[in-house]
Amino acid sequence: MTNSEKTYVKGLEGVVVDETKISNVEGLEGRLSYRGYQIAELIEKKSFTEVVWLVLSGEFPTEKQSQNLEKFLLANSKLSDFELTILKTIPKTTHPMLVLQSLVPILDLNSGTNLEFPENNENAQKGLVISAKIPVLIASYFRLQKGLEILQTDENFGFHENFLFLLKGKKPTAKEVKTLDATQILQMEHGFNASTFAGRVTASTLSPVQSVISASIGTLYGKLHGGADEEALKMAISIGKPEKAKDFVENSLANKTKIMGMGHREYKTVDPRAKVLKPMAEELCEGTEFHDIFQTLKAVEKAVQDEMETRKKEIWANVEFYKGAVFYALGIPPQFFTAMFAMARSIGYLAHFLESRQDNRLIRPKALYTGNPNRTIG
Amino acid sequence: MTNSEKTYVKGLEGVVVDETKISNVEGLEGRLSYRGYQIAELIEKKSFTEVVWLVLSGEFPTEKQSQNLEKFLLANSKLSDFELTILKTIPKTTHPMLVLQSLVPILDLNSGTNLEFPENNENAQKGLVISAKIPVLIASYFRLQKGLEILQTDENFGFHENFLFLLKGKKPTAKEVKTLDATQILQMEHGFNASTFAGRVTASTLSPVQSVISASIGTLYGKLHGGADEEALKMAISIGKPEKAKDFVENSLANKTKIMGMGHREYKTVDPRAKVLKPMAEELCEGTEFHDIFQTLKAVEKAVQDEMETRKKEIWANVEFYKGAVFYALGIPPQFFTAMFAMARSIGYLAHFLESRQDNRLIRPKALYTGNPNRTIG
Repeated sequence: MTNSEKTYVKGLEGVVVDETKISNVEGLEGRLSYRGYQIAELIEKKSFTEVVWLVLSGEFPTEKQSQNLEKFLLANSKLSDFELTILKTIPKTTHPMLVLQSLVPILDLNSGTNLEFPENNENAQKGLVISAKIPVLIASYFRLQKGLEILQTDENFGFHENFLFLLKGKKPTAKEVKTLDATQILQMEHGFNASTFAGRVTASTLSPVQSVISASIGTLYGKLHGGADEEALKMAISIGKPEKAKDFVENSLANKTKIMGMGHREYKTVDPRAKVLKPMAEELCEGTEFHDIFQTLKAVEKAVQDEMETRKKEIWANVEFYKGAVFYALGIPPQFFTAMFAMARSIGYLAHFLESRQDNRLIRPKALYTGNPNRTIG
Repeated sequence: MTNSEKTYVKGLEGVVVDETKISNVEGLEGRLSYRGYQIAELIEKKSFTEVVWLVLSGEFPTEKQSQNLEKFLLANSKLSDFELTILKTIPKTTHPMLVLQSLVPILDLNSGTNLEFPENNENAQKGLVISAKIPVLIASYFRLQKGLEILQTDENFGFHENFLFLLKGKKPTAKEVKTLDATQILQMEHGFNASTFAGRVTASTLSPVQSVISASIGTLYGKLHGGADEEALKMAISIGKPEKAKDFVENSLANKTKIMGMGHREYKTVDPRAKVLKPMAEELCEGTEFHDIFQTLKAVEKAVQDEMETRKKEIWANVEFYKGAVFYALGIPPQFFTAMFAMARSIGYLAHFLESRQDNRLIRPKALYTGNPNRTIG
């Protein structure tokens, strides 16, 4: 290898590695669209299952297709006996993200019904069975950890309505469902982020969809990626009050401690997801016991921004930052935040799997060898 | 995104993405070295555990360190009760690679002994517990599939001696152990192949070692990567006799069917691993019932090379091609070949995990958006 090859970008920052038609991350403009539609408009005008269909297929479903998809997701959510036994056998101290990474590769992906998905129906259905079972895995593991009885899907419920029911054992309010629908649409898909890219590398060897989604989940787990939501909320809890945010930020910056959920590699202005999420989180937390947590987060963002302004830098909270407050107010503990992310993003992973299968090429880069020159044992 | 950014290389072929000091793949010269030592010399002069230590640390172990490592690998190989229950619960039709991908994230990684590894001891030990348990997972799953009793590690055996004992229920011959040691050294590490690269993407978000190795295993599973060994041997079995190889190759080329295990993205001459493996496979198969399979593989390689010569192209069998014959002759069925690959390569994955932790940077490339322009729901 010659010296001229030393021109590489560590972390592939800004390096284009492939094409996609699924989502468009316009970092400078602070815009995110799925299949051409801005996320804020999708959240305002379309249902969760309509957006799932759009992300996977490129177009909105007919009313019948949308109903069939919701039915499919509920009908295929039930865990089989062996899946449930394994979930019960895993030690309850295991992080939910490791549980998901572990269960996904061995799930029974046979679906009882035919979705008649317009393209690559077999793979699309297998992937959707994974997305159908993840909420049940999360809710069931949550209840097993707490020593509560595991509940069964109610097929009369909507997708997230059923999830919140399985988790908490009571029918959620319309506002809770709407907030969760919106949050999960927000984090459904986001270009070649690290976990989606890891999944595309996995898919490129022609590994099956369950291997791909599991590998992505394993990548999402890291605290520089999905794990940031858990870290951001834990930070807010440890700070405790908005008044203490400024001191905390000053100390963190002085000690060069990373503040999780602030800044984003792609967005150089406000994260369009945080823009939707922040007022939603504020509304949900207002007048509840979560008021202080939300206000603390807001104060941390402000303090960081003020500090950065003096350095002539612009920084914004990303989607991870306020998401925790939403989940926490919905009754989901911090340890499960990243699993909630995986639940939504599994649709994005599946879309990328299906897209990569249309024109596959093995992803196998080169490394620059900087180790010992040839030596012999002698 | 501007048009000028359209200059990307699909599959990252030839694109340098990071540095490494672990192995050097010199494709044009047909050379592969670990930490500066050529693999043929390592196989000739060093033990399996000495090479493991070298790959992980950069230098050979002292005699005491080498002994401690072998002891550590055997002492930590035992499956805990919950691990065994899960292994028994997984339906026996599940592919062994999915079983490994599934079990690795939830393994109990606490080791009873301290290896005193020179750098990053905690992570190195956790990773080595995974490498210690993979052989037992493979052997136990193999026996569960066959309805045989699961056997327990004998700590008086060597690492691969114990594995073959756990698999087949009898002490292997010295030649069998030596052949397996060599084969596993050969496939221990190989730069930024797809599965190692996927693992580095996973590691870059700061996901833990078990998430990283599981993601790599999921990537190795694909038939364009590790899965090629299984495909190559199945091909040889289906051809049946060396005399039929020429017709098979001509048909495959005419129908543009890929012949698995032929050619390699990096090596433009003989694959240095195949060079060591081919005579070893021939010796092992000679005078046994596996003679025809080996000779068929050899005849396929020859027929492809002859055909390519008329097209002024050079092509060689890669390491996957003859490996199957070795494993088959050792009593390992095709469905387990890629799992054997994962067993060896887990050391390489761990080495890259440890290396990436020394100077981490999130791997998050860009995608070129070629989908619909902005549109509104109206």
